[in-house]
Formats: sequence, C-alpha cells, structure tokens
Amino acid sequence: MSDSKQTRPRGFTSDNIAGVSPEVIAAITACASGQALPYGNDELTHTVERQLAEVFEHSVDVFLVSTGSAANALALAAITPPWGSILSHADAHINRDECGAPEFYTAGAKLVQLPGEAGKIDIDALAANATRMVGDIHSIQPSSVSITQATEMGSVYALDEIKAIGRICRSANLPLHMDGARFANALVTLRCSPAEMTWKAGVDLVSFGATKNGTFGVDAVVSFRGDLASTIAFRRKRAGQLSSKMRFMAAQMDGYLRDGVWLRNATHANAMASALAQGLALVPGVKIQQRPEANILFCRLPTSLIRGLLDMGFRFYHDRWEPGIVRFVTSFATTEADVSDLIGAATSLCAPVGSARVPAGAE
Amino acid sequence: MSDSKQTRPRGFTSDNIAGVSPEVIAAITACASGQALPYGNDELTHTVERQLAEVFEHSVDVFLVSTGSAANALALAAITPPWGSILSHADAHINRDECGAPEFYTAGAKLVQLPGEAGKIDIDALAANATRMVGDIHSIQPSSVSITQATEMGSVYALDEIKAIGRICRSANLPLHMDGARFANALVTLRCSPAEMTWKAGVDLVSFGATKNGTFGVDAVVSFRGDLASTIAFRRKRAGQLSSKMRFMAAQMDGYLRDGVWLRNATHANAMASALAQGLALVPGVKIQQRPEANILFCRLPTSLIRGLLDMGFRFYHDRWEPGIVRFVTSFATTEADVSDLIGAATSLCAPVGSARVPAGAE
Amino acid sequence: MSDSKQTRPRGFTSDNIAGVSPEVIAAITACASGQALPYGNDELTHTVERQLAEVFEHSVDVFLVSTGSAANALALAAITPPWGSILSHADAHINRDECGAPEFYTAGAKLVQLPGEAGKIDIDALAANATRMVGDIHSIQPSSVSITQATEMGSVYALDEIKAIGRICRSANLPLHMDGARFANALVTLRCSPAEMTWKAGVDLVSFGATKNGTFGVDAVVSFRGDLASTIAFRRKRAGQLSSKMRFMAAQMDGYLRDGVWLRNATHANAMASALAQGLALVPGVKIQQRPEANILFCRLPTSLIRGLLDMGFRFYHDRWEPGIVRFVTSFATTEADVSDLIGAATSLCAPVGSARVPAGAE
Amino acid sequence: MSDSKQTRPRGFTSDNIAGVSPEVIAAITACASGQALPYGNDELTHTVERQLAEVFEHSVDVFLVSTGSAANALALAAITPPWGSILSHADAHINRDECGAPEFYTAGAKLVQLPGEAGKIDIDALAANATRMVGDIHSIQPSSVSITQATEMGSVYALDEIKAIGRICRSANLPLHMDGARFANALVTLRCSPAEMTWKAGVDLVSFGATKNGTFGVDAVVSFRGDLASTIAFRRKRAGQLSSKMRFMAAQMDGYLRDGVWLRNATHANAMASALAQGLALVPGVKIQQRPEANILFCRLPTSLIRGLLDMGFRFYHDRWEPGIVRFVTSFATTEADVSDLIGAATSLCAPVGSARVPAGAE
Repeated sequence: MSDSKQTRPRGFTSDNIAGVSPEVIAAITACASGQALPYGNDELTHTVERQLAEVFEHSVDVFLVSTGSAANALALAAITPPWGSILSHADAHINRDECGAPEFYTAGAKLVQLPGEAGKIDIDALAANATRMVGDIHSIQPSSVSITQATEMGSVYALDEIKAIGRICRSANLPLHMDGARFANALVTLRCSPAEMTWKAGVDLVSFGATKNGTFGVDAVVSFRGDLASTIAFRRKRAGQLSSKMRFMAAQMDGYLRDGVWLRNATHANAMASALAQGLALVPGVKIQQRPEANILFCRLPTSLIRGLLDMGFRFYHDRWEPGIVRFVTSFATTEADVSDLIGAATSLCAPVGSARVPAGAE
Repeated sequence: MSDSKQTRPRGFTSDNIAGVSPEVIAAITACASGQALPYGNDELTHTVERQLAEVFEHSVDVFLVSTGSAANALALAAITPPWGSILSHADAHINRDECGAPEFYTAGAKLVQLPGEAGKIDIDALAANATRMVGDIHSIQPSSVSITQATEMGSVYALDEIKAIGRICRSANLPLHMDGARFANALVTLRCSPAEMTWKAGVDLVSFGATKNGTFGVDAVVSFRGDLASTIAFRRKRAGQLSSKMRFMAAQMDGYLRDGVWLRNATHANAMASALAQGLALVPGVKIQQRPEANILFCRLPTSLIRGLLDMGFRFYHDRWEPGIVRFVTSFATTEADVSDLIGAATSLCAPVGSARVPAGAE
Repeated sequence: MSDSKQTRPRGFTSDNIAGVSPEVIAAITACASGQALPYGNDELTHTVERQLAEVFEHSVDVFLVSTGSAANALALAAITPPWGSILSHADAHINRDECGAPEFYTAGAKLVQLPGEAGKIDIDALAANATRMVGDIHSIQPSSVSITQATEMGSVYALDEIKAIGRICRSANLPLHMDGARFANALVTLRCSPAEMTWKAGVDLVSFGATKNGTFGVDAVVSFRGDLASTIAFRRKRAGQLSSKMRFMAAQMDGYLRDGVWLRNATHANAMASALAQGLALVPGVKIQQRPEANILFCRLPTSLIRGLLDMGFRFYHDRWEPGIVRFVTSFATTEADVSDLIGAATSLCAPVGSARVPAGAE
Repeated sequence: MSDSKQTRPRGFTSDNIAGVSPEVIAAITACASGQALPYGNDELTHTVERQLAEVFEHSVDVFLVSTGSAANALALAAITPPWGSILSHADAHINRDECGAPEFYTAGAKLVQLPGEAGKIDIDALAANATRMVGDIHSIQPSSVSITQATEMGSVYALDEIKAIGRICRSANLPLHMDGARFANALVTLRCSPAEMTWKAGVDLVSFGATKNGTFGVDAVVSFRGDLASTIAFRRKRAGQLSSKMRFMAAQMDGYLRDGVWLRNATHANAMASALAQGLALVPGVKIQQRPEANILFCRLPTSLIRGLLDMGFRFYHDRWEPGIVRFVTSFATTEADVSDLIGAATSLCAPVGSARVPAGAE
C-alpha cells in the first residue's frame, strides 16, 4: 500500500486506509491560529454540539474522542457496572478487535457473544439472554446491549430490526448502544433520519463514527440520556481522551457534518461497493456472498484469483473467515477508476487461457 | 477568550489556548490524500520513530497518543503494578489534574505526594520514600518515580538534579518517568541535548509533549527500555489510543520535529515569558515570584491590578495557589505585541492617580 | 434444607451444604487460646506450608484464602495480564459461577470459552486457541489456561489428558492453572500422587480446595513457580484475603490434611456417588448420563420422579442444563443411609401402580 | 511470640494476636454437622441479620466477610466511583495498611489524606476538602468520607464529633463510612447505643469488626442504606468474599453478639489498657502520650527500657512513629496478670541501680 509508484490506489483492506475529506482539512486550517478556550469550552465545540442535536432532532450530550474504540468503551462503561455483561454479536468489533477496551473501561465487565446471520444479533438469542440469570448472585448480570450499524459484515439492520431489539432492551431494562463506526453508511442505505435509526428505535447512546468516512481522528459519543453526561465526562477525562485543543477535534467534525459532506461521502462509498459487487459478479468463479448494504463486500474467490490480485498489488483481507472468502472495503475516497481497475484485473485473471491468446495469435 | 472583537489575543491562561504551527498544518495537508497502512504501519509513523531515535541518540519505542494525560498514564502503567506507588511531586499534573488517569491505567496504584520547592521533588524526601515499607505486605510498594520537566510551577530541573534523582531511582530499582508536557521549553533552557536530559541522567521513559508547543493533538510515549514495548503497545490499544489513521498523528509530529520547529517554538515561548517578567517587574506593586525558567511566570499582583486586567479582557489564573498569586503562560504563538499590551495595561493600571492626570492637566 | 424435622438430610444440591469434619473442629479448638503472630507468620501456617510441600513433593508457595473463587481469581491474576485471555471450558466455574471474579482480579482479562465433552476442554480446540491472534495488537492475547479437576460435570481428567494439555501450554508458553475445588475427589479416582496430577503433568498453580471436602472456610493457592510468590502475596492482601488470625485458617487446613482426613473424606464422597448411581440405574425411567468419576452424578429423570422427590423433601438441581437432567452431589458427610433413602424413594415413586398394590393386596 | 515456654503471653503488638472467645468456638461446634443452605441462605445467617438489626435499631443489610480490609473496601466501593476520592485521616488503616484494597475495589479511586490530632479527622480540613474542586473535570471528585472508630491511635470520636462530621457529609452529599474494626471498644467507652454512634450521627455504612474482639475470621459490612444492597452483594461475590458455608461465618458472629459477649470483651480489653496506663505512668521515665480511650496505649519509653522489655520477651511496636514512642494493644484475652507482669518488668528495669541493691545490702 505504498503511495509511491502505482498509478492508482489498490488498497481495499479497510476504509481506514483512506485520507481525509478536503472540507476537513479546510476546517482545521481555518482555526489554526487565534486563541480558543481549551477542553471543549470553545465555540467550535459548542457548534458541533448544536449540529449533532439538529442531526438527531434530540437534545444530546456530545463527547468527542480520538478513536472509535474509545467511543465504544466510554459509552459501554457508562451503562455497564463491573459485574455486568454487554450483549453483542460474537463478531462485534468491541468483542474481537479492541483488545479488551470495554473490559478495561468497565473495570471488568464481560461480553456475552450472541450468534446471528450476517453480523446481526439474532433476536431470539437476545431475548433469551436479556434476562438470563438476573438476580443470581453467582452470575454476571445482563446490563447493556450493543449493536453495530452497519455491521462488521457489511449488513445493515433494518429499522424494524432495531426497533425489535429496542423493545427487548426496554422490557429487560437494558440500555441500548449503537456502534456507529459506519453510521453514515448505514443511514444512507436505510434512507431514514438519524432520529429514526437511533432514539426513535430505542437506542440510548451512539458511537458516532467519523474517522472512517472523512475525518482523521475524531469520533463522538452521542448520548440521548442526560443522566449519563456526568459519568461519561469524568470517564473521558480519566481515560486521557479529553483533548486540550478540542477545537481541532471539533473542526474535523464540523467539516464533516457541514453541507452534508458526511452523507455524500457515505453515499459514494456505498455506491463503489455496489459497483464492485456488480462487476465482480460477472467474473467467472466469483461468488458474491451477499449484496453489499453499506461499503463492505464479502465474496468468494478462487485461490488463483486471490493470488493473482495480490501479485498485481491489490490489497484486501482474505482467508480470515473461511478459505476463499475475501473482504473488499470501499471508502469516500475510492474512485470509479479504482473499482474498474480491480474488476478489470479480476476479469483478465479469470479469462480462459485460450481467449487470452486470441489477440496474440491474430492475423 | 473569544477570537472576535479584540484586536489582540489576551489569553495567558495556558499554552493550550494557542493554535497550531503552520508547519503542522502543512504536514497534515500533505498527507491528506492517498492511501496509507493504518495503526502506525505507515511510512510517516516510521519516519517519526526514526526522527525521535535521532533526537534522543538512542533506540526508542515510540507510541503516539492524543493527549499528554494518556501518555503519562500509559507510561506509568507500564512500570507500576496495581499494588505499587508512583512517587511524584504533590503538585504534579498526574496527581492534581488528570482526574485519576494514572490510577485508572494502573488498575489502582497510589500516588505518593512528595514536597519540594518550585514544583521540584525534594531529593531527601524522595530518598526517604524510595524504599519506604518495601517488602511490607500491608503497604503499597514504591514502584516508580515521575518528574515533570519543565515543572507545573515553571521551574526546570537542572541536569545535576535529574541525575541525583536518577541515582536514587537506580539504587532503589525504581523506573524513572519524565512528564515532558513542556519538554522542549525545558530543553532550550538547559541548552543541553535531549539525551543528556533523559536517559543519560537516568530517565527510562518520557511523555514527549508536542501539543502545547505547536501541534494540536499528539504527544508520544518515548521509551528507552525495549522490554516495555509490548506492554505499552497492548495498553495503548486497549485504552482506545491506537489511531487508525495514524499517519495524521505522525504528520503532526513530523511537522513539529522537522527543521527544528519544536525548538524554535519553545525558545520563542520562553523568551516571551522572560520579556513579560522583565516588563512586569517594573510595575509598582508587582512581585515576580521566580524568574521564569520556561514559559510560565508566577507573580504576585495587587488585587486592584488583577481586577483591572480582567476587566480589560486579559485572562490568566489567579488566586488558586494563594491570594494575589497570578500565573501567566506564554506559547509559541504569543507575540511581542501581546506581551507589550499586557505590560502596558498593567503599567497604566498601576500609575498613581495624580501622575496619570499630569499630562492631561499640563500647561 | 432445614435441619429441623426431617429424620435424615435430604440435600444433594452441592457439597457446600455439608458441615465440617470433626478433625477440623478439633484443630480450631486446639488453637483457640494463646497468642500467635498474625498474617501467616504463625507456626501453624508454617506447618501447613510444609505439609503441602510434602503432599506435592515440590517446593511450593501457599496462600490460604477464604473461598475457592478467591483462590481461582488470585491465581489467574498472577499469570494473566489485563489484555490477556484465560482459556477455559465454557462450563468452568470461573466462567459461569464467580460473577466475574477473574475479570475483577485481572483488571479486565477475557475468558475464552472452549468446548469439550463432559466439562473437559477439547484438546484440539485448546491447540487452535492457544496461539490464536498472538501478536495481533487488536486482539486479547492468549495468556493462561485453566482446567477444573474434577470438572463441574463430575468427570475427571486422566493423567494423559492433563499431560497433553500441559504440552500445549508449554509450547505456547501459557501457564496452566488447575481449579481443584474438588482436587481430592479427582485424586482418589485417579489413584495417583498429587505431584503426578499437577506439576509432573505441567500444572503451574493449583487452587487447592478444602472447603467442599471437610473444612468450612479455607482454600489455598498452591504455586510451583517461585517467581509468582510476590505478585500473589500483594494481590491477596489487596483483595482483603490476608487473614489477620491466620492460624485459624491454617488450623482448618491442618485438620484437613493430617492423618489423611482429606483423602478419606473424598474417597467416601465418591463412593456415595457411585452407590447412588448404581441404585438409581435400576429405577425404571432413570438414565445415568455418565458413570460418576468423582462425587457428582448427572442423570435423566422422568418429570414425575423429579416432582415426587422434591415433594418428599429431597433437594437437587434439575432442569438447568436441559429438561429432565438432574444433578446429585454427595460429600464426605453423606451417609449410606442418606443414599439408600434417596434410592428407596425413587424406587417407590417409580413403582408401577399395580405392582405397588401387590403387597397390599397379597394373600 | 511462640506459645511455648513462656509462663504468660507477652505480646502487646496488636489485638490480632489473641485467640478466640470460647462462645465463638461453641457456636462453630454447634453447627458443625447437619446440612444448611449455602451462600448466606441459611437460618444462622438470617439470625445474625436480625441480631444486627436489633443491635443498631434500624433495618440493615449485612454482608459477612472474612477480613476488615474486605469490609472496608467493599463498603467504600459501594459509595465511591472510580473518579472519586475518599476523604480519610492520613493514618487511617484504609490508607496505610491495606496495600491499596480500596483502590482495587473502587477501580482506582483516590484517598485524600486529612490531618487531625490523635488519629481523628480535623473538622476544618474535612469541611475544606468536602467540596474541593467539585465539578472540575480535571480533578478527582470528593465522593465519600471514612472515619475509624476507635481510631488507629487509640482515641475515640465523641458523639458530637461524629455528628459534626455527619453534618458536613450531608451538606456536601458525601456518604459517611465508619471503619469499626474496634467498634465495640469505642462503643463501651462512649457508653452510648450503636444507633447513636452510627446512623443517628450521620453514618451510612459500618465495617463492623469482630475479628479483633473475639472471633477469628468474620467482619461485616452493615449498611443503613437499602439502595446499596445490590451493589455490595455483587461486589462481594466478585471479590471472592461470598462464603459457601456461610453458616460458619454467621456462627462466629452469633457467638460474638449473643449474651453481650462482644461488649464484655471490649470492656475488658479497654480496662486492661487503662490498667496498663496507670501502672506504667508510675514508672520513672515513662510518659503516657494520651489516656487510652479504647484498647490502645501510646507512651514514650526510655530506649533502655524498650530494650529491656524486648529482651524479656515482651512484644510491642516501637520507634515506628517517632523514636521512643511505643504502642501497647490489649485485647479481650489480655489478663490482669499479663498487665501486672509488664508493669512489674518495667518497674524493675527502671529501678535506680542503688535501690535495686538495697535488699541485697539489708540487715
């Protein structure tokens, strides 16, 4: 993934290999000089707080942090006691990819891993676990639920699915957290409002991701429950996540939210994944696992094709889930040409030997 | 501290109200597009690692994080078990201003608060506590020492002082951490090399601050002890401090280190504090507490002068230490005009009523 | 389970409903007066340390604690960093029944739940997980392995099985812990030495249970690794588990170990479970799940029989694993008469209506 | 402190070197056989809960634990968030002698050390710290207050003193914890009711000590605030402090409380300390530091006398506070003869050389 000699970026490993939206750079640059109050008492942070209240059509408490893991862990620690459990999908980022950040921030809570198709929590499994061993002094107590939207598998919970989860949570008195590392990607797929996808469906807190979709180092805990504000505030400070020059965190978020940059970016990233799916579906031997609902595409590729693409410099995760399974991730920065290159390469690599010789043997 | 109507910035509360060096913005902008490996596997992060190895003339492990509190807490957690104590000055930032971040990261270690003039640890108190209750099962065990350079009081440990502390640490087998939130400010005062101020004097790990002196969101744990690398790496991830788009953290640090920006910035900030001290010393009723050794000036002001300056829009901390005591902090962005304004305002406020009228009533 | 009106104890829920061996009462009584050094510096504690060194034919560090959960959590915290994982069976007590004690003591490590028949870790699953994601910064790191001997399902690892686990642990550099809440019950089944069942097979630390088998409030962490002594010692104190009048903990253990009380007790408890299995196997409709290898018997009972036994005052866990599955646990205090009562009751409850009347209608 | 050859116990180091009251042994013995529900669901535990409700004339939640440190840490964790501080005397056991148990159980709270004469918190220092930095995101937040009754220095808070502390706590909204490791000793000195010394004076939770005064391994968290019951219950389990054979913990407490054993024991221990003070006061060169208010006596002894007593086998702490300062602790098991022996030994050691010879030169 060197930025050097290749004519075109060939990385599809993750949306975190992308750079940053020009609007974000502009926003940072605009506040580079002058003085501002530190620790979030500046005007730009207040602006972002207002923006997110408008985005969500709800009073919100906003806590800007430097990573999605920090956002998740902070949010979960605010709603899960040390003797509690967090119900999430077994493949959730909080369970697999954060090196125990939730356990650290909660002082030792446990993640209960639920099954479910395509990265989505199975609703029956959730219902069964939501009240499991409640009141049993020997057992960790079900304390919170976390869903990822869009999921790590590239799927998107439908509004009805979120609502069903929300109902279970309310009836079991479990706060519902949404890991929205790819919040915008899911949102544009559902063509609904942020309010509909969150608090109207029963979500209490969101990790509102921005880093994967246009900024370079800011995500936010957005809480609809005012009673959690103090807990989160002190935990953020204590975690070393209260930025002194907060205006630069806010500037990124401002550049991201203003004029719909975030929605445009997500719409584009999703479209690139769709285009990739359409193109690859036509390549002999390629099997699309599931139509991409956000900006992640899982498909099955012949081993020779995987090798061939790697040899040509394309980069993507493969053979981590099961042999032959490949994951391609697009981003706001992926271009149509990037996608065409990949499809073209796959097509040529899969062309029958005979046909490939045709031009050579012409005349 | 609004950036709006005032002709000149009048904030002297802290160096964290400043913006960011143009070189840092340029470095960020330069890497805004293109792809890079995430989580610190990019070339820019490797470059910064090399730069810091050169700066310190030592092999180093570098861990970029988003705040100084995170750097401190990570470093201390790597060298302090949960049943250990961290010996620091009672006024240390880690003790007073991080809402228990060291306690959080260490899983409950204790800060032992040592006395000492001007924010520096008293060497005898350190010696007495370095081996206090060692082996007593009922007592927290002395486990690490942390000094702040420059200190929270604006003083700077001389090399001999650091060496003396280092010797006590070695003889008691205690790792020595330096909170270098204002590392550069101390360094240019001492006119020594980073190596001399750290590992050559017995320091094992440094929180290498950049945010206060020119960047907006990156500090580094720099470790001279290779055996700590793994511990710090996993703890950083778990703390939500492993940035996915790390190149933008690295870019800030690169812009900061390249071409001596960091040293120029610190030299300037210190000079502004000196100029301020010189100017204020001539104002009737003002008493400089100590000649500023870095970019912080403590002085005693008459109540009427404090009130007058605040009324004119100047901002600074006052009456937190004892009545009448004021702290002014300068930064790389403080201009000579900013300083002149403050001195001029103080002078005019302190002019005797009669003398102030003299010109008006002339002739 | 009142001790009041019933002629005979009818509780088979657990071995923790039993009282205490007379030898333990005698030992407590013998040291009731006089003075002794506190915190384990008394002669009786030293005696117990020597006894356990002899029992295990190895130098050991001994830490008496008040519960098995404390022993387990302490042992695991000594060998698992906060970012580590503990590999255990999904049904392990540490995973299901300690309300997160290991997570608390380790400051947030994760339990990886392995499958396996009859409560024993599947060896292939262990091998696959022992090095899973090692070095991947995003993942919790495999750090220790814990097996329960005898298991929660009443089975006993054969020596070869422990050795196989020990080999995997050594090759993956993972310390091996044995939860020996029912250590003695397993030992007498295997007819081997404590050394063979532990360090000779690759075990590093044992939670040496005594409470279930004759004492009322003492278990021990027994460590074969001298390098862990200091860590465990400070953690024990910090956990509020360092008893001031330790001699009374030691007295219990002394009464338990001296003259083979512990082995006699376990032999008896196991025999009672065997007798129960043999008797119940003849009752129509009863299906023994597995020949009991220690003092726990799982069997399948008709619903009507379960109801009937409960109505008669017998107590046992049922329908927690799957419908119709019942667990009976015997102890050192279970008498042959207690067992006969239960078998007799089951037999009479299952007697065909007609046949039951035969005697009555005899001629 | 061997119990071997000396005619009489000569240990005065602490009340934890004593054995146990006969009534406690009797109570243990009485419940040694038979079955009982585990984990505190037995009748004896319920009995103790009722006894303590009667003792305190208040509905209470009772949590039996195996050490005073566990009681303190559990109680404090229930009322102090991780970002909170616990205000206590600098010499408090929780601060000096528990190896960070409160920090462990609270997940990293901080102990703020207050000054005060004779081990009692200075009321003005408490008032000043009770609201210090409240709401300042950078600072640990005052969250709870802990007083020791009787104090580690052997003094006893008067009811008015406790009430004054209680008023400050209520006005600052800080729960008040009492470390009652020597609760009974203080109570009999004040000649008041347990209710008057606790909730009527503003105390929310008590660590009700029994171990030092007659039992061998049980203390209790007694909470007057029903809202804390669930938190404490889960934390106790998680800490490995939920005894399976709880009836034996309860039996100790029952033996201790029944028929006023606890009050008789404390009255006796206090009387022994008074007698010791009276006797030693007459020894030339001895200076009583303060009339003992409980069962602890601090006095100043000539070095030669300290040496002489040690040589004779007497044991006590000396020279830990300042040179020449000695602490003697009596217990329920200290006899008048033990005290006479010590006084006699001191007297003979301090007799002027001449006078010692008088008898020899008589006739």
